[in-house]
Amino acid sequence: MTAPLPTRPDGLWADDLAVGQTFISRTVDVSSDDIVEFAQRYDPQTFHLDDAAARGTFFDGLVGSGWHTAALTMRLFTEALPIATGIVGAGVDLTWPSAMVAGDVLHLEGTIDDITFSKSRPDRAIVVASHQTLNQHGEARQRSTARLLAWKRPD
Amino acid sequence: MTAPLPTRPDGLWADDLAVGQTFISRTVDVSSDDIVEFAQRYDPQTFHLDDAAARGTFFDGLVGSGWHTAALTMRLFTEALPIATGIVGAGVDLTWPSAMVAGDVLHLEGTIDDITFSKSRPDRAIVVASHQTLNQHGEARQRSTARLLAWKRPD
Repeated sequence: MTAPLPTRPDGLWADDLAVGQTFISRTVDVSSDDIVEFAQRYDPQTFHLDDAAARGTFFDGLVGSGWHTAALTMRLFTEALPIATGIVGAGVDLTWPSAMVAGDVLHLEGTIDDITFSKSRPDRAIVVASHQTLNQHGEARQRSTARLLAWKRPD
Repeated sequence: MTAPLPTRPDGLWADDLAVGQTFISRTVDVSSDDIVEFAQRYDPQTFHLDDAAARGTFFDGLVGSGWHTAALTMRLFTEALPIATGIVGAGVDLTWPSAMVAGDVLHLEGTIDDITFSKSRPDRAIVVASHQTLNQHGEARQRSTARLLAWKRPD
């Protein structure tokens, strides 16, 4: 397979990336309306829907769905690491050390941990990127390690 | 810590779960409008936004964001495994063997792989649940293993 067409012709190819390279995103604000709207569609549990009703439950109040944190993280990721052929994830491991709350101002900090070119398809690489989603107090709301596909810059 | 208040008083407690127990969800339909709307907010890449513009790129057409697949999976999960204190995830590993497309009719199939009660807090358990999100042709769009918190039924 030759490299796919770029989705960002001015973006980064696998040979533009280096192990140890870091990236950082802009911030995104999280409101209670955002939290509730996401939850109504995708994760309609009490502690993601209603602060008063959530008192005494595990989170003891309104918190964002971890999948909402993950979705916002992806938005920041696509902007902070502009791979030419797009952010194409083969898989990801993630943890939520704490839950996102209304008023959080999130940003992403990441590092390229590994780049392995395929032996059978040497124009193609698996890029391992670890990243944290942090709020304005430095609290980690998500930690992730993603395995991404990238290609060498076409001749 | 005593058990948190249930979000689903008629739901399952840790001692209601058994290793090997399976669960299955209803189906959910995926439309191109759904795919594009999610992508505009959380993953605005060409191949999640515009079928024609995505030709020649990695997916060669419109596909859903993996995070959209994950969000729909969570919706099905909350319904298919009604843990009394809610689905509280400590972490998850996930892969996307193939990308979700418009017209997919997804459902979830899962298994409880492990239940480990805490030695220091014996009313609390980590439940490991592996699950697949499959379309109407049996194609796996997501495979996940989640680590969930659950509590023994209070006296």
